[in-house]
Amino acid sequence: MSHIVELLAVGTELLLGNTVNSDAQMLARELSALGLNVYYHSVVGDNPERLSQSVELAKSRADVIITTGGLGPTCDDLTKKVVAQSFGKAMVYHPECADAIRSYFACSGRAMTENNLQQAWLPEGCTVLENRWGTAPGCAFQSGRHFVVMLPGPPRECIPMFKEAAAPWLSQLSEGVICSHTLRIFGWGESQVESLLRDRMNELTNPTLAPYAKEGEMELRITAKAADQAAAEALIAPVEREVRGLLGDLIYGTGEDTLEKVVLEGMKARGLTLGTAESCTGGLIAKRVTDLPGSSAVLRGGVVSYTNEVKTNVLGVSRQLLEEQGAVCAEVARAMAQGARRVLGCDAAVSATGVAGPDRDERGNPVGLVYVALAAPDGCWVRKLNLAGASDRRDRVRIMAANHALDMIRRWLAGLEIERI
Amino acid sequence: MSHIVELLAVGTELLLGNTVNSDAQMLARELSALGLNVYYHSVVGDNPERLSQSVELAKSRADVIITTGGLGPTCDDLTKKVVAQSFGKAMVYHPECADAIRSYFACSGRAMTENNLQQAWLPEGCTVLENRWGTAPGCAFQSGRHFVVMLPGPPRECIPMFKEAAAPWLSQLSEGVICSHTLRIFGWGESQVESLLRDRMNELTNPTLAPYAKEGEMELRITAKAADQAAAEALIAPVEREVRGLLGDLIYGTGEDTLEKVVLEGMKARGLTLGTAESCTGGLIAKRVTDLPGSSAVLRGGVVSYTNEVKTNVLGVSRQLLEEQGAVCAEVARAMAQGARRVLGCDAAVSATGVAGPDRDERGNPVGLVYVALAAPDGCWVRKLNLAGASDRRDRVRIMAANHALDMIRRWLAGLEIERI
Repeated sequence: MSHIVELLAVGTELLLGNTVNSDAQMLARELSALGLNVYYHSVVGDNPERLSQSVELAKSRADVIITTGGLGPTCDDLTKKVVAQSFGKAMVYHPECADAIRSYFACSGRAMTENNLQQAWLPEGCTVLENRWGTAPGCAFQSGRHFVVMLPGPPRECIPMFKEAAAPWLSQLSEGVICSHTLRIFGWGESQVESLLRDRMNELTNPTLAPYAKEGEMELRITAKAADQAAAEALIAPVEREVRGLLGDLIYGTGEDTLEKVVLEGMKARGLTLGTAESCTGGLIAKRVTDLPGSSAVLRGGVVSYTNEVKTNVLGVSRQLLEEQGAVCAEVARAMAQGARRVLGCDAAVSATGVAGPDRDERGNPVGLVYVALAAPDGCWVRKLNLAGASDRRDRVRIMAANHALDMIRRWLAGLEIERI
Repeated sequence: MSHIVELLAVGTELLLGNTVNSDAQMLARELSALGLNVYYHSVVGDNPERLSQSVELAKSRADVIITTGGLGPTCDDLTKKVVAQSFGKAMVYHPECADAIRSYFACSGRAMTENNLQQAWLPEGCTVLENRWGTAPGCAFQSGRHFVVMLPGPPRECIPMFKEAAAPWLSQLSEGVICSHTLRIFGWGESQVESLLRDRMNELTNPTLAPYAKEGEMELRITAKAADQAAAEALIAPVEREVRGLLGDLIYGTGEDTLEKVVLEGMKARGLTLGTAESCTGGLIAKRVTDLPGSSAVLRGGVVSYTNEVKTNVLGVSRQLLEEQGAVCAEVARAMAQGARRVLGCDAAVSATGVAGPDRDERGNPVGLVYVALAAPDGCWVRKLNLAGASDRRDRVRIMAANHALDMIRRWLAGLEIERI
């Protein structure tokens, strides 16, 4: 029989939006990796009635219940008591937990208030989950068909405790593993990919095939459930081959890849250096590359040429060209990239010039018109983009322009047609 | 009668932990500000049965139901259909929505696949919530005691749509108003602010006073509940005066202000121009300034000088200085800012040079050591930062360095002591 998991987070600070429920995200990933199906995430406040109703609800629709939060020393930390009541268990004092709490304070040199010892009371017959990252111990127990795990709320306690103590305890339940491969796609929207793959997505059950729209790009996830990793991979492989055959070089990476990561690694592997010349993107391309550790091995520098004077004085773009054609044209994009190559002394340079909005430029060019260029030893390429959408989507115009600049480098590195969009 | 709100997020990617449910956090904040009580957050996958059970559950325990996600063009986008069924409503085709979707694609120059028009089907008699940030329109309707709002999942669409369209529709439910003033603070941590204000925070009930830690900064929210706006403002005013008296010029703005916004507006108001010279921040400062519409009136440009050659060749930093003292020192920060002023021809320029990590630099400078400088007509100032606390977080070192650079400009514009941290 396959298990159904509910994650129940307890805390008014979550309900009010003062904290984001990142525990749910991280636990959900860990649980999927154990092959357990998470069907529900719930959040309820520090209120005894509603908490107890939420526990009853979880019992009715799930057989694995994992709570986060409400294990602390203060009077609104109710989780253990309410859950114990719901399962008809008495609370038992654990002297060894009390000692652990005392020594935790001793080590951190802080005075311990008595209410901290309340954390040493746990439901009878439970397995204690030691908390080496904070004071509140967690616990786990089975009751009839239900398996219950209680973890503290702070992610830096909750997540390591889950991995170290809860996951081993839960592994008794896991039937095989869920394994997923993510393909990263740039150049097509969700609806295009979905219309190409709809039939297969509907046919496939194991593995499943699902598209997700990301910021200016797409990911396609192939997820298989099997007895072990190898069997899951074997289910995924043919579907991945099929999808790669259909999408070809629209697929720029897998897993946690990003366009900037693929570009950085590709340049580094070839010992090449990179530079940027940014007008409408205003530093975003350089910022994204330098977000990555090790970028100093590849990025020599960049120029944010927001004014024509800087385009001319720093990048050497012809003043006449700017006067005749304006800053937003293919020739200026090309001249910016070539200028950056020369001034920064790098092997390849990308540039972006366009209208990020919210208004048309002084020449009446529409918001979203952007020219992106790549200058390399073997040539110079330009893409003309029309990124208009709602005119107040300045951030999106900039992100897409940066994505295209990075995509051009990625295609140049891979020897693919560069101007194709 | 006081309303009870449930937030129901729909999406298997949330259940599996591939995405964090940030919509719930942001909507919860907005709803609290409307005086509505959020009692439950739930997440359910793209599964018709479980989704419909979750809707029934929400109907049974809440009277305001706000769904996020599942409005898109793909076959696993079920929310509108399932919710309409549960409330016995037929789905109606909205030609004006179809036109909006078509023109969205027309503007963005992308081909529209037919499945996108599925998004134009909405429950009968609903109020359409226009989506100017994406393709899927939202909707809102009342049915008996229930008020239902459906929003798309991507935060970039969900949050602005809520503020622009859903919040006004929901305001019919709020009894009285909840009004809040946010003070933005840079230079102190949450614990410092909290220890200064703890007693007042505990005493105050209406208005309440609450600190929130932001990325590298702080906000302090004063929230009052009253019959009308004027009465709420009257409750807030004295507390705001008191807090301003205590925190003084650590408060750099209010409401939606950001350091870059305050800097941009301050420079624009004085007709001053800005430039940047960035090493460890790699373009982040220029990127943040150019995130803002109208930045072209102020920012002339920037140089990302990731290598010493660029520092020397483009910014004119003395090669000897770099050889003798290395790139990470006060003198280089100063020379970079002054070089940027000269090369970019701007009134004021900021620079940042330091070790973002993950590793010490070749001279053994520790991760988090950053020098930030401001060069202006009336002088040049440097801040030495030790951001080691964030040594595990390259992005945080960069964000804090950028914050300090912007804070120095903000203080220069306001005639305040600039090097104070």
